[in-house]
Amino acid sequence: MTQTVTYLEALQSRLGERVSTGRADLAQHAKDEGYPQTYLPDAVVYAESEQDVLAVLEIARAHGVPVTPFAAGSSLEGNALPVKGGISLDLSRMSRILSIDAPNFCATVEPGVLYRELSRQARPHGLFFAVDPGADCSLGGMASTCASGTAAVRYGTMRQQVLSMRVALLDGRVLTLGSKARKSSAGYDLKDLFIGAEGTLGIITELTVRLHPLPTFVASARSVFETVDAAVEAAVMVIGSGLHPERIELVDAETVRAVNLYVGSAHPELPTLWIEVAGSSRVELEGQLALIGELCQDAGGSQFATASAESERAELWAARHNAYYALKRLFPDHTSQTTDVCVPISALPEAIAETERLARELDLHAPVMGHVGDGNFHVLLHAHPDDADAWARIGRMSEGMVAKAHALGGTCTGEHGVGLRKRKYLEAEYGSETVAVMREVKALFDPQGLLNPGKILP
Amino acid sequence: MTQTVTYLEALQSRLGERVSTGRADLAQHAKDEGYPQTYLPDAVVYAESEQDVLAVLEIARAHGVPVTPFAAGSSLEGNALPVKGGISLDLSRMSRILSIDAPNFCATVEPGVLYRELSRQARPHGLFFAVDPGADCSLGGMASTCASGTAAVRYGTMRQQVLSMRVALLDGRVLTLGSKARKSSAGYDLKDLFIGAEGTLGIITELTVRLHPLPTFVASARSVFETVDAAVEAAVMVIGSGLHPERIELVDAETVRAVNLYVGSAHPELPTLWIEVAGSSRVELEGQLALIGELCQDAGGSQFATASAESERAELWAARHNAYYALKRLFPDHTSQTTDVCVPISALPEAIAETERLARELDLHAPVMGHVGDGNFHVLLHAHPDDADAWARIGRMSEGMVAKAHALGGTCTGEHGVGLRKRKYLEAEYGSETVAVMREVKALFDPQGLLNPGKILP
Repeated sequence: MTQTVTYLEALQSRLGERVSTGRADLAQHAKDEGYPQTYLPDAVVYAESEQDVLAVLEIARAHGVPVTPFAAGSSLEGNALPVKGGISLDLSRMSRILSIDAPNFCATVEPGVLYRELSRQARPHGLFFAVDPGADCSLGGMASTCASGTAAVRYGTMRQQVLSMRVALLDGRVLTLGSKARKSSAGYDLKDLFIGAEGTLGIITELTVRLHPLPTFVASARSVFETVDAAVEAAVMVIGSGLHPERIELVDAETVRAVNLYVGSAHPELPTLWIEVAGSSRVELEGQLALIGELCQDAGGSQFATASAESERAELWAARHNAYYALKRLFPDHTSQTTDVCVPISALPEAIAETERLARELDLHAPVMGHVGDGNFHVLLHAHPDDADAWARIGRMSEGMVAKAHALGGTCTGEHGVGLRKRKYLEAEYGSETVAVMREVKALFDPQGLLNPGKILP
Repeated sequence: MTQTVTYLEALQSRLGERVSTGRADLAQHAKDEGYPQTYLPDAVVYAESEQDVLAVLEIARAHGVPVTPFAAGSSLEGNALPVKGGISLDLSRMSRILSIDAPNFCATVEPGVLYRELSRQARPHGLFFAVDPGADCSLGGMASTCASGTAAVRYGTMRQQVLSMRVALLDGRVLTLGSKARKSSAGYDLKDLFIGAEGTLGIITELTVRLHPLPTFVASARSVFETVDAAVEAAVMVIGSGLHPERIELVDAETVRAVNLYVGSAHPELPTLWIEVAGSSRVELEGQLALIGELCQDAGGSQFATASAESERAELWAARHNAYYALKRLFPDHTSQTTDVCVPISALPEAIAETERLARELDLHAPVMGHVGDGNFHVLLHAHPDDADAWARIGRMSEGMVAKAHALGGTCTGEHGVGLRKRKYLEAEYGSETVAVMREVKALFDPQGLLNPGKILP
């Protein structure tokens, strides 16, 4: 107790009003968007600069206090929860876009910048930021969970977007990793070690990320299928054809129904592919759409429709991005748990079939939507918070999905990170020797185990 | 001396005839394609399996003997030279393509497989391997130097191609990193730590790499310019237009002259852009070519020409790939040193102008060619091996180029790796704290300093 006072005093003397122990602040930092339990920090520090971050790390180190970074709070696996108490290091005030370097197709930002704001500010330069997880996420958090989204099939995940970073280590050193050069083979790639590390190795204080030219001409297509299998088959054919769609998304019948209810649309309530293509001329788009139409038809698709007006396309993709909220809306008194796995593309039909089988066996409502061009899909599981039996079945369902993903050569998480919930799968995924090396890397950067403790490693 | 005998005996008893101490074998492993000095190993081991690699590592560890991996010997910066003697671990016999998994767009190979052979075997599946450094390189070596080439502007470097790897550590553990899933956010990205590590952290014993669909329709375009500046400006405009060319290469007048002499072609001897585009229809290609033609003209280009027949295109790209050898041929009694830097795209004109200025100031013949879509360019420097004064000037030229690249926010090597020659630039590039962390990572995996000693770290 004495120690707590001491480190709080130290924080307050260094950081003044940027330190809060108010109930509302603590409660806000005790939960994220996807994890049911709450974990209160002892204090929240609203860092406004790299110097503030370094001050927090220095005090944490001196007093042996855990530090868990936090920004938008949109994580789904408990990634930003202070499970051991201590300091919640809130980076949301570090939200300056430091520069948009249009000639070099990149921007330098603080970690609390929201990706939608970056895309908004890049637009007048004819550029956009290509990772779109759906929620209103911060770029530091997205880098820390290696987030992606609908455009990853074309532009890659956060790993491909981050050109350089500044990372503050627990021992007070600040690393500058990468540069604005698009490629480098100069020494060890430490940058990628911090992408996906969920703040367990260091705190990202600045990022330079790629921006991409806004495509000149864009069109969307939709095809519906009798089965999810047929839809996935069509998606694999599109990827295999050498087309490079901007997006290729699967939603199952259940999800379309929810979206229709949510936004008042009238999409056919069947498994559906939503595809977006871009090109440098209208005639190029027409060629791509025609080819996609043929491939969908070959796979048994019907009701092929296209949209090239901005408003129509915006509506379609808003529906996709709102699918998660639309589904949650259907069950207002339920708590939901969304989970994602990623498998080799050809294994996707089998992975989704097993997911549907598990849902039937366990009597769960489990709508599926997926970034099928990457082999990545999500399931939204939900139940009344007090329904212990349903939550036990949801746990079994998650385990069954991950086991199947592993059996098919895939991964337990494609884009949500490990957080708290998926730690138990790491040994099955990598083997105990690789996990042991991960532990050694963790010990190298955080020998006291103070940075976001309890995450990633089992 | 006693120790040497002991470890050689141990090698011979475990690996039999796969161990050689023959003069010719030692000499062949003492040099690469780009480094002037030779360093003889004490022994060469021709590993035929991961078990052989583990046996070599076990003996090396027990006897404190250095191990330097070697395969095609095509490195340019001394990356595979056994500067401290010991064992040259030759992986060229581990050259089996273990599987081509066409439905998942990937192949699993041993590290000694040459990339051209992989592309050849992928072709009947409608697929190809997208990294093409020019020389006949091995995939293990390419991963170890984070190699790229002309197609990186579209498909990325080795970092984007390697889906998974098996890596043998000095302590005998074998890590399996990554999977056939296209993306993952499951824990620390150790895979990328070994890409570009030049065998200083572990030995890659197997790789699964991406294959890409062969584009259906392909065409090439050429435009010539009065100045290198104008050519680079055109390249930046093409990238900024939202086109995604397969390749966009700059060659200077000197290089075109050498190619003309080498292959008997009659390309205009002026700074030239060679561009390749692909699409799903002829009409799409025509649109792209027309746009590229306009952009080149806007930047002052002339003599715009296109080629869509396979034979014409093959000839053009063979010329590009042979440029290095064409230039070397012009000076048959010279030794050459090729160097590469990579800068933010908008800084490319200034970086190349400084290169040309340095060449004039130092009275050197310094032809430039570059992967301009990535901001990466190469200079071929050459002199008679005995011309100490010229080699001193070449050293100053290299240093000047790297200093300029750093001043412009770039990197000392875009795709050749650090090897021996670029170690001295790492602190300028990353700062001493980051290099200190690299040393700590090295010590974690190789506490005895036995894996490819003398490389990467200054």
